[in-house]
Amino acid sequence: MTRAVVPRRGPGRPGYDLESLLAVAVGVFNERGYDGTSMEDLSQRLGISKSAIYHHVASKEQLLALALDRALDGLFEVAADVRRIDAPAIDRLEQLVRGSIEVLVERLPYVTLLLRVRGNTEVERRAMARRRQFDRVVAALVKQAEADGDVRPDVDPAVAARLLFGLVNSLVEWYRPRRDFDSVDISDAVCAIAFDGLRIRRNGRRR
Amino acid sequence: MTRAVVPRRGPGRPGYDLESLLAVAVGVFNERGYDGTSMEDLSQRLGISKSAIYHHVASKEQLLALALDRALDGLFEVAADVRRIDAPAIDRLEQLVRGSIEVLVERLPYVTLLLRVRGNTEVERRAMARRRQFDRVVAALVKQAEADGDVRPDVDPAVAARLLFGLVNSLVEWYRPRRDFDSVDISDAVCAIAFDGLRIRRNGRRR
Repeated sequence: MTRAVVPRRGPGRPGYDLESLLAVAVGVFNERGYDGTSMEDLSQRLGISKSAIYHHVASKEQLLALALDRALDGLFEVAADVRRIDAPAIDRLEQLVRGSIEVLVERLPYVTLLLRVRGNTEVERRAMARRRQFDRVVAALVKQAEADGDVRPDVDPAVAARLLFGLVNSLVEWYRPRRDFDSVDISDAVCAIAFDGLRIRRNGRRR
Repeated sequence: MTRAVVPRRGPGRPGYDLESLLAVAVGVFNERGYDGTSMEDLSQRLGISKSAIYHHVASKEQLLALALDRALDGLFEVAADVRRIDAPAIDRLEQLVRGSIEVLVERLPYVTLLLRVRGNTEVERRAMARRRQFDRVVAALVKQAEADGDVRPDVDPAVAARLLFGLVNSLVEWYRPRRDFDSVDISDAVCAIAFDGLRIRRNGRRR
């Protein structure tokens, strides 16, 4: 995403490319809810006519689809990267968590929108199906790590996978990157707790 | 909450007590968003007139306040119970997590509503202030546990507290109690991961 997010202003009125239009739309969707946002609302917020919006997209639903894919494509790119790593499942799982946090931080409004989707439209249901597909990637890695003897066997892999990504996804609620606490720092904190626990391991060495 | 949740039906039209009216209202708020719900919507869903609703509450905002307090009061009761336990901070922290999960499961729609509050009204801002107060209770316990040498010192206590309750709160998104996986089972899974980590501790004994 190297294209300008700030609208280019021509003489008289702001101009948008698809990228900057999408960024504004996603902000409004997160603020008012997708269902509660009309093309008229978007037109007012953007300061351009509805027909100027229709120059870029066919419908409000297409904006939603583009926004949700922005989040989902990021997550699936991470999953594909992780698949290529030649390492035990537990390490690939950790890389999947770290990569997902990076996507979450870099594409925060898009991931926030994705996590709020409730399946009211066809586009939302498709996004939810892709989320479930991603969840299955996570669950398969947890299961493999458990078979390798690297993950505790007393928590069901599907439950462990949900809890792990529940933890990751909860970041959208409060984490905002700061210079002194960036996405690597928050990844370290999440992985420290999720993989090794909050409690100090007395009488035992860490691996 | 021992009062009837199912509306009592008198001759001709359904009757509600405050409790059952609140239960329906919270369901609609979670479905359409609080801002997106009018008293007219509630009246239609309840099958009673607006003036019949006003017989119970002065305003839509009062319904919201009652609903949010239902969640918050539960959490603060747990915090008060935990304060009375004579045990190290790490154990009180675990009890706070377990008690909070019990509240979340028993009052799921109310806690769901609380977690979605964004501070658009005075009632919401008051609820958010109470949530922050609860977060400070959690953070203080983590800090004490760290001072006791029971919690890893490499994660900031405030961050650890947020991650811990991020994990707990993420349950509203997917966990629904089942006979074979009840609130104690999910508490066990959350505490196993949050306190002791997903990774098996090789070469070391558990405390």
